[in-house]
Amino acid sequence: MGRSYDTVSFLSDYGTADEFVGVVHSVIRSIAPHAAVVDITHGVDPHDVRGGSLALVRACQYMVPGVALAVVDPGVGTERRAVAVEVGDGESILVGPDNGLLAPAVAMVGGAGRCVSLTDSKYHVESPGATFAGRDILGPAAAHLCNGVDLFDLGEEVDPITLLPGVVPLSQEDTNLGGIRAEILWVDRYGNCQLNVDPEEVAAFGSRVQLRWGDDVRTADRAHTYQRITPGQVGLVTDSYGMLSVCMGRRSAADELSMPVGTEVTLAAPTDDQPAVSTPVAFTTTRSTTP
Amino acid sequence: MGRSYDTVSFLSDYGTADEFVGVVHSVIRSIAPHAAVVDITHGVDPHDVRGGSLALVRACQYMVPGVALAVVDPGVGTERRAVAVEVGDGESILVGPDNGLLAPAVAMVGGAGRCVSLTDSKYHVESPGATFAGRDILGPAAAHLCNGVDLFDLGEEVDPITLLPGVVPLSQEDTNLGGIRAEILWVDRYGNCQLNVDPEEVAAFGSRVQLRWGDDVRTADRAHTYQRITPGQVGLVTDSYGMLSVCMGRRSAADELSMPVGTEVTLAAPTDDQPAVSTPVAFTTTRSTTP
Amino acid sequence: MGRSYDTVSFLSDYGTADEFVGVVHSVIRSIAPHAAVVDITHGVDPHDVRGGSLALVRACQYMVPGVALAVVDPGVGTERRAVAVEVGDGESILVGPDNGLLAPAVAMVGGAGRCVSLTDSKYHVESPGATFAGRDILGPAAAHLCNGVDLFDLGEEVDPITLLPGVVPLSQEDTNLGGIRAEILWVDRYGNCQLNVDPEEVAAFGSRVQLRWGDDVRTADRAHTYQRITPGQVGLVTDSYGMLSVCMGRRSAADELSMPVGTEVTLAAPTDDQPAVSTPVAFTTTRSTTP
Repeated sequence: MGRSYDTVSFLSDYGTADEFVGVVHSVIRSIAPHAAVVDITHGVDPHDVRGGSLALVRACQYMVPGVALAVVDPGVGTERRAVAVEVGDGESILVGPDNGLLAPAVAMVGGAGRCVSLTDSKYHVESPGATFAGRDILGPAAAHLCNGVDLFDLGEEVDPITLLPGVVPLSQEDTNLGGIRAEILWVDRYGNCQLNVDPEEVAAFGSRVQLRWGDDVRTADRAHTYQRITPGQVGLVTDSYGMLSVCMGRRSAADELSMPVGTEVTLAAPTDDQPAVSTPVAFTTTRSTTP
Repeated sequence: MGRSYDTVSFLSDYGTADEFVGVVHSVIRSIAPHAAVVDITHGVDPHDVRGGSLALVRACQYMVPGVALAVVDPGVGTERRAVAVEVGDGESILVGPDNGLLAPAVAMVGGAGRCVSLTDSKYHVESPGATFAGRDILGPAAAHLCNGVDLFDLGEEVDPITLLPGVVPLSQEDTNLGGIRAEILWVDRYGNCQLNVDPEEVAAFGSRVQLRWGDDVRTADRAHTYQRITPGQVGLVTDSYGMLSVCMGRRSAADELSMPVGTEVTLAAPTDDQPAVSTPVAFTTTRSTTP
Repeated sequence: MGRSYDTVSFLSDYGTADEFVGVVHSVIRSIAPHAAVVDITHGVDPHDVRGGSLALVRACQYMVPGVALAVVDPGVGTERRAVAVEVGDGESILVGPDNGLLAPAVAMVGGAGRCVSLTDSKYHVESPGATFAGRDILGPAAAHLCNGVDLFDLGEEVDPITLLPGVVPLSQEDTNLGGIRAEILWVDRYGNCQLNVDPEEVAAFGSRVQLRWGDDVRTADRAHTYQRITPGQVGLVTDSYGMLSVCMGRRSAADELSMPVGTEVTLAAPTDDQPAVSTPVAFTTTRSTTP
């Protein structure tokens, strides 16, 4: 027997309109009644592996040590492997499809230790169809790990180097413009648009930063909090994960600025001949609102 | 005292925008602090008793033995009874309105044993209004059952034969077309459309099946998984509950094919003079993708 | 050490599409593994402090004694205080921003006892950014209170009289019309429209009540339950919190009558020269459906 665990942190693209999440909870509780299931989110867009991997990597540093079960699995039932990956010398185990979903979180917490493909059907729930691995393979594996079943009992050992890597875009210097080419990684419920940019990367630009995306140009004020953004003005806030986020106070920046996930944005120092504001908002005297 | 339980599996049409679900959790925890509440789903469409009964019957075979609390209750406060129904020789008890919601699940797990109408106000939570039976009658009954209160203490015995039956449409042979007349029972988050058809019913048709609905005709390829469906092609997959499901890989079949819940679909062997595809998708060489 | 608690009732405007709720659960479980978190709702509209305060006050009388964590916090990171407020001689503690969100619930359960501003960073989770107080300050405070940390250890004492009051509109007599001027406080999932009116206030009007809002006039029938409302007719039901609610049976009154949250509605006795129905619904012989 291996180490046992008492928490399964569960993230998926299952949504909550169907019974998928409840059925996985039920299966886990049937196998490991002592384990608590903490729902991280089930609101990942359907089949959005990248979005799921980013939510997981944002959450993982706060998750309770134990088992993390992540399911965004468009290739369910095909030859893609279902895997369990130890991290932190076995302090935690990530369970999910081997499609890149787990990779950024595994890297964030120090890289993969022992790794297994969940091939032993003794630890599966026998069910019709091959389309609900969360219920039949991944959820049961998470529960058996909670019970102290050793990782290597769940199937064939896998060399961690063969795990599919995740795809998280990095920001790049733009030598033409003297700026940074970045991308919107995440739009949250409030419409704040997280960039793949560390605040230090724009420190040299000062308290104002020019944003260019599509045919739009706006100058954003660095701000410490959403509330400090002047109404109608664009703010650039260090968000709760330490990344720069494009914000408009209580309004949705994603909607107002047409800046969905995946938008490419170039950040640069403001130019003297600042172009006119290209979106119809009230003109306000721009000033630094950084506290 | 009767048998006690430690799990309440909870399904409703309450949604999660309001505090209804949280209040029922609170009431259960106040009465039976030892009991865990597993949320199956609260995303049943408002007042959709049939949809709720189908979600319950899909989930029930995976639910932890204990109490199942189901609330889709358009007739709340009227003379419709609130009931508790034992199944499996008391291994589990289903609690809900007597409006057909529980019936398919009760049948699925072997039929009703002892049955009671929840008339004893000693086990109710006194509240204003008569419109929130989940909080005032059904949830408290679930909690008291967890505590070991005997079913018959909760109110008047009911003859199970008087319980309202559920309405689940069955597929039928279509003697004219030599096919099967079926119906979409459920559209899941991914847009897959579950039919009330067992895969064996179409086995004779081979690897391709003609679908007719409304004015549309399409030929679907039998496939083992969603991923195996050729892009643009319609697939017919055995879903995770063992029923046939109309699918389009990563796209929503319900949206692409205009196939909402309740759509009548006729399944038949493909004809030689296959009609042209009637929806504007790219033409692809059709071939069997069954593994 | 103070009293310890084993339940955190959690309400927010975080939604469930992002991982915010799951991260707060994780942080609480990391600090206080024995505590159960009961999700009241996370569907409060973003930044809607009033809507959140009303959901909290509706739910609070049913919540398990313990810690209530409420987060609707547009001013996060600014000089608005984060507070913890004892109620019921310490039976429960409310934790949240000092922006009026907690005030109606505090008043409902008897007023504030000891009160503290959560300024001691020893009880915070150190994180980047200043925008996620639920994770960094409020959630951790709730968890430490569960562990028996005394309220006054969490920061500086606050005089309860300085807490920001909540804004809950009261209904008023309309001396011109001889009626009551009221407001829609809440539209629930089913489209029922809760008024800030006690049934006793309209008792003198009898079994029918005239409603005027915007340019519309309708006569509503008092009814005991939704099901008793004649199809096409407007009903006035005592809802599950003891307030009058405008309802249309299984249809959404909010949609059919264009009656969103905040609509001002005047209630009066029906006039003899009853104006014609001003919305295009089938004419039905009006009659009292009160049981």
